[in-house]
Amino acid sequence: MNDTFLRACRREPTDTTPVWFMRQAGRYMAEYRAIRAHHSLLEICRQPELAAEVTLQPVNRIEVDAAILFSDLLLPLEPLGIPFDFVKGEGPAIERPVRCAADVGRLRPFEPREELEHVLLTIRLVRRELEGRVPLIGFAGAPFTLASYAIEGGASRAFALTKGLMYSEPEVWHELCELLADVVADYLLAQIEAGAQAVQLFDSWVGALSDRDYREFALPHTKRIMDAVADAGVPVIHFGTGTATLLEAMAEAGGDVVGVDWRVPLDEAWERIGADRAVQGNLDPTLLLGPVHRLLDGADAVLQQAGGRPGHIFNLGHGILPETPVEHVQALARFVHARSA
Amino acid sequence: MNDTFLRACRREPTDTTPVWFMRQAGRYMAEYRAIRAHHSLLEICRQPELAAEVTLQPVNRIEVDAAILFSDLLLPLEPLGIPFDFVKGEGPAIERPVRCAADVGRLRPFEPREELEHVLLTIRLVRRELEGRVPLIGFAGAPFTLASYAIEGGASRAFALTKGLMYSEPEVWHELCELLADVVADYLLAQIEAGAQAVQLFDSWVGALSDRDYREFALPHTKRIMDAVADAGVPVIHFGTGTATLLEAMAEAGGDVVGVDWRVPLDEAWERIGADRAVQGNLDPTLLLGPVHRLLDGADAVLQQAGGRPGHIFNLGHGILPETPVEHVQALARFVHARSA
Repeated sequence: MNDTFLRACRREPTDTTPVWFMRQAGRYMAEYRAIRAHHSLLEICRQPELAAEVTLQPVNRIEVDAAILFSDLLLPLEPLGIPFDFVKGEGPAIERPVRCAADVGRLRPFEPREELEHVLLTIRLVRRELEGRVPLIGFAGAPFTLASYAIEGGASRAFALTKGLMYSEPEVWHELCELLADVVADYLLAQIEAGAQAVQLFDSWVGALSDRDYREFALPHTKRIMDAVADAGVPVIHFGTGTATLLEAMAEAGGDVVGVDWRVPLDEAWERIGADRAVQGNLDPTLLLGPVHRLLDGADAVLQQAGGRPGHIFNLGHGILPETPVEHVQALARFVHARSA
Repeated sequence: MNDTFLRACRREPTDTTPVWFMRQAGRYMAEYRAIRAHHSLLEICRQPELAAEVTLQPVNRIEVDAAILFSDLLLPLEPLGIPFDFVKGEGPAIERPVRCAADVGRLRPFEPREELEHVLLTIRLVRRELEGRVPLIGFAGAPFTLASYAIEGGASRAFALTKGLMYSEPEVWHELCELLADVVADYLLAQIEAGAQAVQLFDSWVGALSDRDYREFALPHTKRIMDAVADAGVPVIHFGTGTATLLEAMAEAGGDVVGVDWRVPLDEAWERIGADRAVQGNLDPTLLLGPVHRLLDGADAVLQQAGGRPGHIFNLGHGILPETPVEHVQALARFVHARSA
């Protein structure tokens, strides 16, 4: 088995720097588009055979050192009582956003081993089909990011409703986030039981918060999840974007690995996160849209900043964009392995 | 005349900390909505009497120490050859985005004193009506931010097309940005001639860039503008959001005052920007949506971080949101004056 990813998570030396990509399964791949031509995003997520097939597509095409479960951050919202759908070209749309104490009061915790059983079946299927080629990463959304979707009703730029609720009714906010934290922790534990060999907690939009607000409104809930999964025996990755001013606090909340975006140089980020953690990142995904020489130059800079120290997992600073040429992703993975060997 | 704002821009001592707000004229005010009921955003921008009236509305309602011209960042695009409109609820839409060398080749520099004469007339009108009560700030967009609208065709999240062009055809990118820099510099000089007593350069979306990319693709063009207006005799404010990792480079590009958002504590920001500059900011605008005690507590923290040093201009980290209660804005301005006295 290729265990460079897992070794790097534990800050053990590896022969090459492991690499995987957020959204490595997705619209930039013809194989994925072929499936999407006949199935919606949610259909794929909910049909284990399809989700497993999509999860494996990049493993077969690109020199990645890990697979990541194909799924969606929002899946736990529906069984919680917050149904949603994906509107073509506009992203997620939540029918009835959560805006007040009564809305939160209506939500109910659920058993992920029943209500999200299809995700766990996908994990089992993928593990079987991978036959140990590379480890499989499971994932879930962090409370701030999930709450922001639930409150805004979809994607947001200013997070006005989210922060409005947070500031105006902190007790309602905390009640919502505690519920989300419990559900997410249990969901991650179920993924680990099903065979996920690492998990990533996505707090994708948490960079909208100041450090002060992060510590008050997000950190305690993220920490609740991190504490719950800390002894499950698999590495935990803690990821966000726009987090240049939050890295210390995110490390404090937890995670064996902290994922950072391209806005902060990796060496600076690692110093702030602390030498007792691994780091993941941090190439700008838009570099994959330009010429290869510039892409590899950027990748080289990231590797230089990591300085060959054990505990660096190469990744992008955010997900692969749909417009990305697959050959560029292939070239990038090959380069990371060759250059770091 | 109340010159605390101008004195603070020059880092001279003031009796109280001056305060103004980005988007202090806008949809959160009933007076503004009354005008918008009969006129589009662009109609207001293009009719000096209306634009002047809207510019003065917050000066009459809120204890601000400066007026800011009511206008739109995109106005220079149309005479440059990039027509656009505002689509209800969706923001700006550019009919024919700039995507290649031929598109850039079609653009033509223009004389702002003719093609944007209505803006200059607005400035003259506002100065006359202000009768020296507070100074008037003019503004324009920085090359990266303007180019991103021109290339994406509107607002963006990942800036995939913008960065794609930047990386793939850097010479086309630089040609576009040089043209934008020349036009914007001339436009700002025309605003100053017409009576603007300070100007702000908005690089609102530049926080999407890494420091490395900022220095290669944005800094030289912003500096071109800053150098051109440096000797015009008025303070220049250099503003962006999500710039926690760019502050040193932004200061290097220029500006007497650097504007920062809420993501970075003001004391840290000022240290990195340098004691030879004034700073503007940096309260999270969403705090205006919550309870007043939390709002004023946040404002107090900003004032504490500024530490009473000459050269702090209180502002938000980005514009006032449409949902904001006007009374909260009034209370905030009063608090800043009282607390800093």
